[in-house]
Amino acid sequence: MVQKVTEVVGTSNEGFARAAQNAVETAAKTVRNLRWFRVTELEGRITNQKVSEYHATVKIYFDLDA
Amino acid sequence: MVQKVTEVVGTSNEGFARAAQNAVETAAKTVRNLRWFRVTELEGRITNQKVSEYHATVKIYFDLDA
Amino acid sequence: MVQKVTEVVGTSNEGFARAAQNAVETAAKTVRNLRWFRVTELEGRITNQKVSEYHATVKIYFDLDA
Amino acid sequence: MVQKVTEVVGTSNEGFARAAQNAVETAAKTVRNLRWFRVTELEGRITNQKVSEYHATVKIYFDLDA
Amino acid sequence: MVQKVTEVVGTSNEGFARAAQNAVETAAKTVRNLRWFRVTELEGRITNQKVSEYHATVKIYFDLDA
Amino acid sequence: MVQKVTEVVGTSNEGFARAAQNAVETAAKTVRNLRWFRVTELEGRITNQKVSEYHATVKIYFDLDA
Amino acid sequence: MVQKVTEVVGTSNEGFARAAQNAVETAAKTVRNLRWFRVTELEGRITNQKVSEYHATVKIYFDLDA
Amino acid sequence: MVQKVTEVVGTSNEGFARAAQNAVETAAKTVRNLRWFRVTELEGRITNQKVSEYHATVKIYFDLDA
Amino acid sequence: MVQKVTEVVGTSNEGFARAAQNAVETAAKTVRNLRWFRVTELEGRITNQKVSEYHATVKIYFDLDA
Amino acid sequence: MVQKVTEVVGTSNEGFARAAQNAVETAAKTVRNLRWFRVTELEGRITNQKVSEYHATVKIYFDLDA
Amino acid sequence: MVQKVTEVVGTSNEGFARAAQNAVETAAKTVRNLRWFRVTELEGRITNQKVSEYHATVKIYFDLDA
Amino acid sequence: MVQKVTEVVGTSNEGFARAAQNAVETAAKTVRNLRWFRVTELEGRITNQKVSEYHATVKIYFDLDA
Repeated sequence: MVQKVTEVVGTSNEGFARAAQNAVETAAKTVRNLRWFRVTELEGRITNQKVSEYHATVKIYFDLDA
Repeated sequence: MVQKVTEVVGTSNEGFARAAQNAVETAAKTVRNLRWFRVTELEGRITNQKVSEYHATVKIYFDLDA
Repeated sequence: MVQKVTEVVGTSNEGFARAAQNAVETAAKTVRNLRWFRVTELEGRITNQKVSEYHATVKIYFDLDA
Repeated sequence: MVQKVTEVVGTSNEGFARAAQNAVETAAKTVRNLRWFRVTELEGRITNQKVSEYHATVKIYFDLDA
Repeated sequence: MVQKVTEVVGTSNEGFARAAQNAVETAAKTVRNLRWFRVTELEGRITNQKVSEYHATVKIYFDLDA
Repeated sequence: MVQKVTEVVGTSNEGFARAAQNAVETAAKTVRNLRWFRVTELEGRITNQKVSEYHATVKIYFDLDA
Repeated sequence: MVQKVTEVVGTSNEGFARAAQNAVETAAKTVRNLRWFRVTELEGRITNQKVSEYHATVKIYFDLDA
Repeated sequence: MVQKVTEVVGTSNEGFARAAQNAVETAAKTVRNLRWFRVTELEGRITNQKVSEYHATVKIYFDLDA
Repeated sequence: MVQKVTEVVGTSNEGFARAAQNAVETAAKTVRNLRWFRVTELEGRITNQKVSEYHATVKIYFDLDA
Repeated sequence: MVQKVTEVVGTSNEGFARAAQNAVETAAKTVRNLRWFRVTELEGRITNQKVSEYHATVKIYFDLDA
Repeated sequence: MVQKVTEVVGTSNEGFARAAQNAVETAAKTVRNLRWFRVTELEGRITNQKVSEYHATVKIYFDLDA
Repeated sequence: MVQKVTEVVGTSNEGFARAAQNAVETAAKTVRNLRWFRVTELEGRITNQKVSEYHATVKIYFDLDA
């Protein structure tokens, strides 16, 4: 059994968990058999002196088809 | 004054803060005088192509009884 | 174009995203042209065996006036 | 000359070197011109209180076709 | 579901995988429900100018009883 | 908005900036909407006791099409 | 031969070496066969604008009884 | 003798050394007695599929006046 | 409650703890409400083949006035 | 008692432990009193789409003669 | 085949690539069979408020004679 | 101007600064033009449940003769 890793940056205006979820949901459109993720960076954009976006960079691990 | 450190992985389906809180609340059942924690890893499980669990690995610091 | 970096610890009793937001909003009182932030540490205080505060240490990047 | 990097988790019940080799052999099915790898994580699964699988996460570098 | 982490140094004169396995088997004598491990350090002792022992420091994750 | 990350090693006999540029230009042949890059490793090859190539490993971030 | 690792924060108003020593002496009250330690963090408390305590976080390695 | 550290991101369309130099020259407008710098991050912006800016994040150390 | 972080290099010919203390005492001349510090680097100068100065780089955390 | 550190890359076609052993045995030809080693990097060469060499970079610690 | 590693700091007033090249050329005077290098630190000296020297610390890998 | 780096572990029963000083003084017996050092690891030996030795691993930088 072998897994492959893809790195994705998800964005949300609610928080870091939602940003990670958006990264996973985007990956899910093109990759099958997603299994787990690890956060590698948490960042955010500031607009008009307020946080306007939360960013979560995640490594997503998925099973390769047999 | 000396503190000891214990490392625990908490899980939640709401987000990372709740996962850290669950780690602390579980530690609190068996260890007294918990003082603070530091996150060392944020991860999550993916089921049916969606995030099903958020995991927070935390180092929890507690005072040793005098 | 040059940016400067300032490091701030924000606190919240709701979660890590709100703690980061509080750090940014405090920086916004004295620094103009804030652009983005990166989380460098997530921690928290424990009171009476429960999480009482979430802390987010963030590096905040802002444009220097021309 | 430019190389690209892909990250893969190989599994083995013999040891870490065999796990890395399995990662490389799986990558070799879909990618040409593999050149070298670097281990980024060594982990393992425990079943019935014994190590049942060794995991090696490897970054694999391959030449892009001219 | 919450997991706890314990850090153990296993020793072997055969190799790193066997050293990790010895760490796990020693932990298994006193802790139930071991699930997985991550290697944090690989070292070794040299005696009479030859490697006499391989050491693997591993973080071992186990489920806390409900 | 979600970004994906690809890791590429560029080579140049002029310097590190040119090596990074070559990595980006190669990625640009097959990936659209490149936005920024971060250097993760600077290395080089030595031939006949002189530096013959500078290598820059870069993570390149690009927008996923909506 | 297997060693276990425990992480402890020692405190002193004299300096970092004394703080590490206090961590070891506290661990020695409840754990046998301590062998060596590694410093993982050096910190301190400031009271009335002066350093009032030096803190040394140490990983302490001890032999498990055969 | 005590030094203070300030972190600045310099930008250039020529290369990383020039980006570091721009960071230093901007700091020099408001801070005296600059002594040395250390690079903490090398990044860049991509426009129309080409590198349009090199960024160097540098920690700049300066002497505090006696 | 929000804290700000400043990074300072203290120097001493006695040792690392005294160097950290000097960093804190210099910061105390211009910043109020210092709370704690973390060591990020320990270095030293060598003159005539002997250590002539110990340097401690410390991040100092202070409360922002309400 | 003072130890010196030398860094060596050993190679093997069997596995990582044998590669580390080869590094130690080569160092032993020119340096006396080798005591222990720590792995700093595990890599490998790929030839014809298979792993042809395992590389272990090790820091080797040896006693200086009194 | 075994390689040894030596760490050298090269200096240049032109840029980082030239500083690395100077490190390699100095090592080449006393060591044979240099193969490649990896940058571990980029720094610089500031004189009269301008960058006067770029420094590149590089690990240089060379083949040991058979 | 080029500097070379050597890594040495000094030992003391007084503290970490003295251990670093011993490392430097031992290096000074065989290497000229020592300039500065950086601590890379602080460790210690425990005998009879007390700290019996403090160890400081230091990278020592020295000028190469012209």
